Amino acid sequence: MSVVTVIGSGQMATALSFPAFENGNEVRLVGTHLDREIIDELRKSNYHLNLKRKVHEGVKFYQIEEAKEALTGADLVLCGVSSFGVEWYGKEILPILDENVPMISVTKGLMNQGDGKMICYPEYWKSQLREGSKLVLNAIGGPCEAKCLADHVPSYVAYCGPDMEILKKIKKIFSTDYYIISLTQDVVGLEVSVALKNAYALATALAVGMAEKENREGVNSWNAQSALFMQGVKEMYDLLPVFGGSQDKIMYAAGDCHVTSQGGRSRKVGVLLGKGYTIDEALEQLKGETLEAVVIAKRTGKAVCELGEMDKYPLLMHVYELLTQGITINMPWKKFETIN
Amino acid sequence: MSVVTVIGSGQMATALSFPAFENGNEVRLVGTHLDREIIDELRKSNYHLNLKRKVHEGVKFYQIEEAKEALTGADLVLCGVSSFGVEWYGKEILPILDENVPMISVTKGLMNQGDGKMICYPEYWKSQLREGSKLVLNAIGGPCEAKCLADHVPSYVAYCGPDMEILKKIKKIFSTDYYIISLTQDVVGLEVSVALKNAYALATALAVGMAEKENREGVNSWNAQSALFMQGVKEMYDLLPVFGGSQDKIMYAAGDCHVTSQGGRSRKVGVLLGKGYTIDEALEQLKGETLEAVVIAKRTGKAVCELGEMDKYPLLMHVYELLTQGITINMPWKKFETIN
Repeated sequence: MSVVTVIGSGQMATALSFPAFENGNEVRLVGTHLDREIIDELRKSNYHLNLKRKVHEGVKFYQIEEAKEALTGADLVLCGVSSFGVEWYGKEILPILDENVPMISVTKGLMNQGDGKMICYPEYWKSQLREGSKLVLNAIGGPCEAKCLADHVPSYVAYCGPDMEILKKIKKIFSTDYYIISLTQDVVGLEVSVALKNAYALATALAVGMAEKENREGVNSWNAQSALFMQGVKEMYDLLPVFGGSQDKIMYAAGDCHVTSQGGRSRKVGVLLGKGYTIDEALEQLKGETLEAVVIAKRTGKAVCELGEMDKYPLLMHVYELLTQGITINMPWKKFETIN
Repeated sequence: MSVVTVIGSGQMATALSFPAFENGNEVRLVGTHLDREIIDELRKSNYHLNLKRKVHEGVKFYQIEEAKEALTGADLVLCGVSSFGVEWYGKEILPILDENVPMISVTKGLMNQGDGKMICYPEYWKSQLREGSKLVLNAIGGPCEAKCLADHVPSYVAYCGPDMEILKKIKKIFSTDYYIISLTQDVVGLEVSVALKNAYALATALAVGMAEKENREGVNSWNAQSALFMQGVKEMYDLLPVFGGSQDKIMYAAGDCHVTSQGGRSRKVGVLLGKGYTIDEALEQLKGETLEAVVIAKRTGKAVCELGEMDKYPLLMHVYELLTQGITINMPWKKFETIN
């Protein structure tokens, strides 16, 4: 039995309590300052307001001011904040962690470093640690929608980190018959893949909006959707080594883009842009939604511009223009054509 | 203006008449002995019985016994037979072709050669040509559903062949604002990709059937579907070099699997197997359907067995067992887990 302390009680972090708790571990779910109501309701009824599922009886709930108590005696810390909480986590939580206790993060994203360089969150947090800190930073990536996982739908992800023995121990905590986990030491490859897929899920969804606008339904948007999905796979495959990942991680990029383009927030904004709304109009309609896809697409677009490689990524660049220049969609289909 | 003679008047071959004809080319559509009724109806009303669309007025229709007439003066021959007509095409049509006129094929598949070796159809036909024949064999691959193309939905494919100048000429015949064409000389990479995707589209659809059986709908099958899709991308990525293709062609494998797993025959048989039917029961329900996915999955499974690499392709091998051993589904999820 291990003690897992989860910082952030969003949908994905909470969904991970299901396999961990079912494996006989103690799970302590700590809400951030944004999760106060969620924790209140969990304490009352075990019902999660956003996940819309009852969490297992026995999972323990904490408000953020009780974080230190929740961290005492933990064998693993799971960071489940959204990408908008990454800096907060680095400033407020990292310093109070026991550096002998490994950490794993389910937060996905990349940060610009200038000159076209991007780093993933484990790299960012590593840079925030005190010199010589032994804290081992691991991360989770792959196509896993939170509600599906909570419902025990078979789900397949990868855990990455620098030390295979630690990864194996973490896997033991979460591995169940419905939660399939591969392990890799290619942290950058996995993290770049699952960050980029948000941008390209948005891009794939553009075709859905374009079809809706033209009153094409069902079968009649397949080719366009698959064309954008395919171009996305190509661009992610080419981007992986640019940011330091191995190209064999394309499976996670493609798989995660597959699930993300089917539903959720990345798809919603893509559909609206595809219908011909400007980004301001689209954001107006999605008020209050956390739009990680917009952030990652802007950041990656910026990096590609810094590298002067805009011609190699026409789909990303069109998304970047949609997000930053107030224009409406005009898909550069012909720019996808290559000769090799 | 070029003259394009199309042998085989199935849905995809006929859909290709749309961009070719709209570009001002003469298009001659020749039915095989299986297409007699289709050609009869096209001659009467221009309506294609399977594509369920009216073909452009001006496209010319021929029965198989008029093939020689249709081939006279052709600048390009398009082979549009199904994979079940590949040997017939090699025996009956190849010998009557003018070897100075390039040929392009939209037929997808691979053939076993023993000892784990597989060849694509252009390679097979090449082996059937008389020694010294100058006939240039090209092929089309990529995510393109026939009805979508006929309806002018943006579609993105690749044309492959040994000679880039000839590919450029062929592209000119078909290229439109809605039909996007990349060119590649990696014939094997493209052909292996778009053949394998049939097997893995069937595999991805297993999750749809499993979900239906358990009364999980919509969102509740996403993770499992994406898990199988992702494992499929991984296995296709690993199989590409085994059969002599470049791994950067994974974009076509993934893109084509994306469109194929959404609908059509490959999906149907996958859904039925996913629900727990045996292959015999599934085929009984799909009587009369052309099941290329079943053929390619069996052939690829056989090749992997010959290579003794069954452990590397657990998804393919389970599909192979489903298709050849009369068993019902028991997805080997845990075998997907890797360490690297």
